[in-house]
Amino acid sequence: MRLLLINPNTSPSITELMAARAASLLGPEVALRTATGRFGGRYIASRAASAVAGHAALDAYAEHGEGCDAVLIACFGDPGLLALREMASVPVVGMAEASCHLACLAGRRFSIVTGGERWQVMLEEFVAALGLSARLASIRTVAPTGAEIAADPDRALASLASACRAAAEKDGAEAVILGGAGLAGLAERIAPEVPVPVICSLAAGLEATVAAARRATRKPAMGSFAPTPRVETVGLSTALASRFEG
Amino acid sequence: MRLLLINPNTSPSITELMAARAASLLGPEVALRTATGRFGGRYIASRAASAVAGHAALDAYAEHGEGCDAVLIACFGDPGLLALREMASVPVVGMAEASCHLACLAGRRFSIVTGGERWQVMLEEFVAALGLSARLASIRTVAPTGAEIAADPDRALASLASACRAAAEKDGAEAVILGGAGLAGLAERIAPEVPVPVICSLAAGLEATVAAARRATRKPAMGSFAPTPRVETVGLSTALASRFEG
Amino acid sequence: MRLLLINPNTSPSITELMAARAASLLGPEVALRTATGRFGGRYIASRAASAVAGHAALDAYAEHGEGCDAVLIACFGDPGLLALREMASVPVVGMAEASCHLACLAGRRFSIVTGGERWQVMLEEFVAALGLSARLASIRTVAPTGAEIAADPDRALASLASACRAAAEKDGAEAVILGGAGLAGLAERIAPEVPVPVICSLAAGLEATVAAARRATRKPAMGSFAPTPRVETVGLSTALASRFEG
Amino acid sequence: MRLLLINPNTSPSITELMAARAASLLGPEVALRTATGRFGGRYIASRAASAVAGHAALDAYAEHGEGCDAVLIACFGDPGLLALREMASVPVVGMAEASCHLACLAGRRFSIVTGGERWQVMLEEFVAALGLSARLASIRTVAPTGAEIAADPDRALASLASACRAAAEKDGAEAVILGGAGLAGLAERIAPEVPVPVICSLAAGLEATVAAARRATRKPAMGSFAPTPRVETVGLSTALASRFEG
Amino acid sequence: MRLLLINPNTSPSITELMAARAASLLGPEVALRTATGRFGGRYIASRAASAVAGHAALDAYAEHGEGCDAVLIACFGDPGLLALREMASVPVVGMAEASCHLACLAGRRFSIVTGGERWQVMLEEFVAALGLSARLASIRTVAPTGAEIAADPDRALASLASACRAAAEKDGAEAVILGGAGLAGLAERIAPEVPVPVICSLAAGLEATVAAARRATRKPAMGSFAPTPRVETVGLSTALASRFEG
Amino acid sequence: MRLLLINPNTSPSITELMAARAASLLGPEVALRTATGRFGGRYIASRAASAVAGHAALDAYAEHGEGCDAVLIACFGDPGLLALREMASVPVVGMAEASCHLACLAGRRFSIVTGGERWQVMLEEFVAALGLSARLASIRTVAPTGAEIAADPDRALASLASACRAAAEKDGAEAVILGGAGLAGLAERIAPEVPVPVICSLAAGLEATVAAARRATRKPAMGSFAPTPRVETVGLSTALASRFEG
Repeated sequence: MRLLLINPNTSPSITELMAARAASLLGPEVALRTATGRFGGRYIASRAASAVAGHAALDAYAEHGEGCDAVLIACFGDPGLLALREMASVPVVGMAEASCHLACLAGRRFSIVTGGERWQVMLEEFVAALGLSARLASIRTVAPTGAEIAADPDRALASLASACRAAAEKDGAEAVILGGAGLAGLAERIAPEVPVPVICSLAAGLEATVAAARRATRKPAMGSFAPTPRVETVGLSTALASRFEG
Repeated sequence: MRLLLINPNTSPSITELMAARAASLLGPEVALRTATGRFGGRYIASRAASAVAGHAALDAYAEHGEGCDAVLIACFGDPGLLALREMASVPVVGMAEASCHLACLAGRRFSIVTGGERWQVMLEEFVAALGLSARLASIRTVAPTGAEIAADPDRALASLASACRAAAEKDGAEAVILGGAGLAGLAERIAPEVPVPVICSLAAGLEATVAAARRATRKPAMGSFAPTPRVETVGLSTALASRFEG
Repeated sequence: MRLLLINPNTSPSITELMAARAASLLGPEVALRTATGRFGGRYIASRAASAVAGHAALDAYAEHGEGCDAVLIACFGDPGLLALREMASVPVVGMAEASCHLACLAGRRFSIVTGGERWQVMLEEFVAALGLSARLASIRTVAPTGAEIAADPDRALASLASACRAAAEKDGAEAVILGGAGLAGLAERIAPEVPVPVICSLAAGLEATVAAARRATRKPAMGSFAPTPRVETVGLSTALASRFEG
Repeated sequence: MRLLLINPNTSPSITELMAARAASLLGPEVALRTATGRFGGRYIASRAASAVAGHAALDAYAEHGEGCDAVLIACFGDPGLLALREMASVPVVGMAEASCHLACLAGRRFSIVTGGERWQVMLEEFVAALGLSARLASIRTVAPTGAEIAADPDRALASLASACRAAAEKDGAEAVILGGAGLAGLAERIAPEVPVPVICSLAAGLEATVAAARRATRKPAMGSFAPTPRVETVGLSTALASRFEG
Repeated sequence: MRLLLINPNTSPSITELMAARAASLLGPEVALRTATGRFGGRYIASRAASAVAGHAALDAYAEHGEGCDAVLIACFGDPGLLALREMASVPVVGMAEASCHLACLAGRRFSIVTGGERWQVMLEEFVAALGLSARLASIRTVAPTGAEIAADPDRALASLASACRAAAEKDGAEAVILGGAGLAGLAERIAPEVPVPVICSLAAGLEATVAAARRATRKPAMGSFAPTPRVETVGLSTALASRFEG
Repeated sequence: MRLLLINPNTSPSITELMAARAASLLGPEVALRTATGRFGGRYIASRAASAVAGHAALDAYAEHGEGCDAVLIACFGDPGLLALREMASVPVVGMAEASCHLACLAGRRFSIVTGGERWQVMLEEFVAALGLSARLASIRTVAPTGAEIAADPDRALASLASACRAAAEKDGAEAVILGGAGLAGLAERIAPEVPVPVICSLAAGLEATVAAARRATRKPAMGSFAPTPRVETVGLSTALASRFEG
């Protein structure tokens, strides 16, 4: 099974962090290819950086997607998710989308804990777009961005654990998602201090991607995820242009 | 990995049908135990039969759950799901709940096709309780019950396929769940005739159960899925009484 | 007029408490029969006990419902309500359902105050299933369960009154339901201390049951409350089996 | 028990029709006073006529409400309901509000059948304001207005019955409200032809008014139904001015 | 362009305040006519006063609306808005409705700050009726009514500014509406102290009224805003009666 | 007043069409600058093309936005709207967002008629993200895309008018938006055949942009539309990079 993990920001170090973490989570039958955004922000903590990253995710898929069995967009917030699900011929999984649906199986209401305060509103909108607002207990952000947490995770552990506990104890969360590429691997360190399940968004995303690849469902021939209609383009990479122009 | 599949109705033949189907879907690392309801309806196609089945599911778990790593309630509509998720020390999966969340990953809106018209309203309520009403395109029932379809699947195939197509073409479904124990295995026969993905609820349920067992998340210590508080009981099976009385 | 009050838990003392209270509320034209659950928890303060109680409510009706004009399920949370409404040939009222709709006539938003913290989430789900989430100001639980409050009501009065006042003053409730069989009769003692109407769930349930019996509406012949379709059963009481098997 | 029935339109003949119907529904312990709007439309079938009727309902209460134990606003759509509930010292019931909550106890989803097509959208808004949109199956209007139906009910019976049946058979209604002062008394004639309960809005309103009077709940001292704050007025009837000015 | 500003309360001083403010906001091409309610409360801070004001707004339009190109109902809460939109042959704008939709263009969630605590619930209902509850961050009221603020604005400035800041900082508002005729002109004084845009409801209403007049859209011939159906009336002003009777 | 109209697709002919139309709608005090996407699809009728266009809109603003007073994203569906609203120092208007809010002022429920069937689901999601789903009557698409309609508008007129009429007569729309850059100017030709107001999305967008520029509201200093936090980027145009990097 060949999976493509797309990091839609432009920090190879984050890609590597996730690749290392994935290696410890995936079985030997999975070959993981990774791709980092060619353009855009070093990390994504704004609406603008996220909008550019949606394009970057398509671009990365066009360049690296050939032959893969499923794709994971590995930025919590899933830039480009629905667009790539339309364009790709194989299943596309978003780390945040997969985590939210998984959390619904674990608890009546769930919270999201992540780094970077600008994600607060963006993630509220994201969850609302999934139709899951009634299942959301809260979103709690800690001050450092995901990138900063990745650079020095030990320093952020206490505040992340504290936010997770508060989500359970004050907000009524019955499951907590630790969201973000930069937080990959911290859930298991925090879990012992939190009275409800803590979900690692990277692990959830990888699990969903492996499952999707295994399922081998056919590409829809109808609806909003049917293949992208052909259209002439200008100014795109050759690979992406050819995805649009067929 | 040891899984327990609970058929909360009282028809061993349906349990066997599912066991056979499961055998073809599960890998060799999975040991599947099955249990059939000790009391209640031969099949479940009413609110009353479903209410009894909720108790029967708890009863079956109390009797057969020891040592299993995860449990699947294998009746589309998931009688007893939240109660058993509270009571059990291991993850509990519902066939309908798992299918609905999976369908959300495949399409913007999904439909459910099942047998037995009384399920129409009950499933609307079920989806609403998940908070997913905005993702539901339609529920379409065909006249025979799931039990009747299980007894003569070939006869029901055309009308099921027709309902699935109508869901996609008229109701805007971008994924269709073929729901019901009795319909296990039919999705792959129907899929070629339907322009959007068709999800087998048994396969979806098994996949989610295996994944849950593998995840080995801790039992919540807080919230509505924390262990059932101890309470004295009367009139229950010894095994179930002991689950309540600790 | 003959009414059946079903206490779906297995504590005859609670049944008697309610019978005594009912006697002071009902006119001489009402003959009240009571029934206590044959199996299940001594009180209901969990999802699991509630699921068993749904079956017990059906069982009690099958045994004792003959000839009654309406039925009240007298446990706040209404286990088995929709199932029994389907099965019974006469109107079935739930104490919580009746209270919530009554509260909507008294105030724009209402709160529920009850005993036993596990009811918090279960009642949120209950109100959501009624479609009334937008009318709910809050649910406040006090530490003792309803059974404990019934055993020593004086001790709980202050904390119940305090919760009711907080619902009005902090949560914006314009009416408060004092929910639970064990709290029957306390509303009138608490009302003078609360600036908005306080509704006793037993009184509300009885009132709705009498009204339903008087109305003598026909049993639906269509929809999800039409008579339970016949189905063969195993392991049920003779009376309940005969309700299913016709 | 003294009740005040306010007909907020200006047709005494409709008031008399309802008084006659009420006489056959109410017991001897109830003294019913009636009042007809002093100003406004002969019947209410528009937003503008309804707005004027809100004022007329307050005006009628100020003139005739002294000493009554509860008030019924007897126009389906309940003009002035929330305003009068605030102003009056006794409970105020709306025919439509009471009917909708009653219908929720009878079926999962309900429909409204009434006369006058302009009520379609106005009633959708009304039901939404109750928070009950998710419980509404449909609103079906027949061409004649309520006033025209009142003048020649036999002529309208067939089309009303047909609309009620369609609500059940096509829209999924599990209960149907026959709404409107002019339709009082027709429900029982139509019921035999409809497979689900048919609710007469006048009967539902009267029943709720009697129950409210009997309950004798205290007037809220807090919230949006606490007594209308004193304010100087101009141009109102002496009675209404004195309600505002205290 | 001729606009009619209707103050539906009966305080000419508030009308004059708004006229003066409007003069500084409108260009020379706009001729503004004003009208004050002929009957009802001196100010509107209750459900009852608001219901009377709905009639008064229709009455004022009937008397003064001839020849105007658009109408503004200049009381935050918009009494009579939908009724007058139906009745009038020209566009009708509500100060609150226009402000809320404008606020949605400025921020993801908005708050309303106004005078008079009784508006809290009434405005929650108003926003819900617009379908905008999900966009509402909070409603904060300060103790003095709008009329009192108008009489001594300097005294209220600090508490209004503080409420606006709290809306942004604690409630997550990304835009704040300063609602109320009596608060006209204060937004620009408060804005420098608030980290998100502050919208003056009078300015927003006037802007929308001018735009509506300029657009010159046709009167709907269908739907709930088509011309008010003719109906005989009694007890209304000659001008209003003639609007109803045609 | 200087406005920037961004056409986020890459067809200068559509930009010119809109510029010509805008010239006839805007007064002499408005200087309109236009920009066409530098990269992406010739027209936008898919999720993928829309995602790229979000980046292209930011790119165009970075290159051409200096000194403008407000920006209009002139593609119905508003790619990049929220991102650009965050990034830009001046107000940013979306053609679809402005049209939807405007439609809410004209009718209780509105419909959207546009070209290109793939917009159906995308626009449902768009309206849901605005929180306006309850106000949406329907979305109706005609077969030709907006680009094809722009190329030969006469040919599409009849089917567009027919869709608008159906929206009013069958779907209950009280206002209809004719959505899409390519349909600019057709509303006034179609309006006479439609019984409810028809809104031209370009006209609505321009009107809102002019109004926003005139209002000169301050840029938020807090919340999700506060200035984009600085972040290092790679691979972007110099102008866009400098917007991100400050």
